Amino acid sequence: MNGQLKLESIRSVLVRLEETILFSLIERAQFRQNRVIYQPGAFGPALGGECLVDFLLHETERTHAKMRRYTSPDEHAFFDDLPAPLLPALTFGESPLVPNQLNINQSIREIYFDRIVGALCEAGDDMQYGSSAVNDVACLQSISRRVHYGKFVAESKYMADPGRFQSLIRDRDRVGLMTRITDEAVERAVLDRVRGKAQTYGQVLRDSAASGLVDPAVIVDIYAKWIIPLNKEVQVAYLLVRNEGA
Amino acid sequence: MNGQLKLESIRSVLVRLEETILFSLIERAQFRQNRVIYQPGAFGPALGGECLVDFLLHETERTHAKMRRYTSPDEHAFFDDLPAPLLPALTFGESPLVPNQLNINQSIREIYFDRIVGALCEAGDDMQYGSSAVNDVACLQSISRRVHYGKFVAESKYMADPGRFQSLIRDRDRVGLMTRITDEAVERAVLDRVRGKAQTYGQVLRDSAASGLVDPAVIVDIYAKWIIPLNKEVQVAYLLVRNEGA
Repeated sequence: MNGQLKLESIRSVLVRLEETILFSLIERAQFRQNRVIYQPGAFGPALGGECLVDFLLHETERTHAKMRRYTSPDEHAFFDDLPAPLLPALTFGESPLVPNQLNINQSIREIYFDRIVGALCEAGDDMQYGSSAVNDVACLQSISRRVHYGKFVAESKYMADPGRFQSLIRDRDRVGLMTRITDEAVERAVLDRVRGKAQTYGQVLRDSAASGLVDPAVIVDIYAKWIIPLNKEVQVAYLLVRNEGA
Repeated sequence: MNGQLKLESIRSVLVRLEETILFSLIERAQFRQNRVIYQPGAFGPALGGECLVDFLLHETERTHAKMRRYTSPDEHAFFDDLPAPLLPALTFGESPLVPNQLNINQSIREIYFDRIVGALCEAGDDMQYGSSAVNDVACLQSISRRVHYGKFVAESKYMADPGRFQSLIRDRDRVGLMTRITDEAVERAVLDRVRGKAQTYGQVLRDSAASGLVDPAVIVDIYAKWIIPLNKEVQVAYLLVRNEGA
């Protein structure tokens, strides 16, 4: 089996990604919700009709595309009109995934704008628009990476025992696939570990008398309500397109 | 006194900035040194002769300049050919600083490239060039913010008792000014707090069996050898230009 598909190596990527996600959420939580940065046109016509966060995300993705970020099978862009890479293609080795165009960043963006910012940040406006938007981009990118890693998880589960999946895939049985990929013990372990990390990081900040503290329950909620379910949605969707690409 | 100059409010900004700096360093330390990303021309002519990190930093600053980042008195760009802001100017209120062009980012960049990356990251190349460069930009920006906050610290110290500084400034007595702004007890307290934070964050990562762990002594060293001394260099330099601008 391709090294990237060993469950052990996938798990270590996902565990380390928890820090990237937690750090980005903790950084964003320093600032108020600043709703104006999510409103298209709120800063006048200069941003081409985009809201401030979309403008920054779009510019960031243009730059990262030039650096060939989105040629990697574990990276997914939010925008689809990005420039070609300036750098010669890297040899990543053969992708362990079947070719696919699966990308649920629009759902991630919506949930992040409409639900996560409100859960994470104090209501109100502190004028820290640029800093908030920079951290929003970091949050969106880290969450997107975690959610789309579901493709690797699903491929790994499939390869370990194709027979368990083939009839469900043939029948396009989403509910059956969702049941088959679900491992409640693993999900509980993820939430427990995330809670522990959020408590520890939160305690350090509390000891520093920092403002904009994050309630560990909020981080656990973000994982439980959105990150884990969206990851599972990617797993199911990937399995359903799996045989088309093969 | 302007609220931004109260030592208490400056201290709380600096303490919270420790997390931003620590998070960015911990994120960078996941990856090898990847020296090729600091070598101009290493990726061919497409990057206009810049090394990969400078290319990304430059593009990032162009975007952030459009969002008026560098109109804020606590932000300093590494490049001086940036576009004008697209957004209408924010009213930050009157800057508490005297007008000045002081910017030591070239020193910060050099020390970061030549010393900090080597202290922080394992030697070698893991091909994670984009991720390394993205985190380099975050490190450079957070360290630059911390170092240049010396302007606020110096202004605050000056305003608290101008008489203690005026003759030293008139005599352009750098050594005397350095002695006057130095508070060894505060420096020890900063290093102790940074060590404690780095140990706690490091323990969480160790418990997760993460790779690319950061030795707390390295973080303390980065503060002791570079961040604190550069901050003090800014304080002295600011005091020396203080009366020119007034």
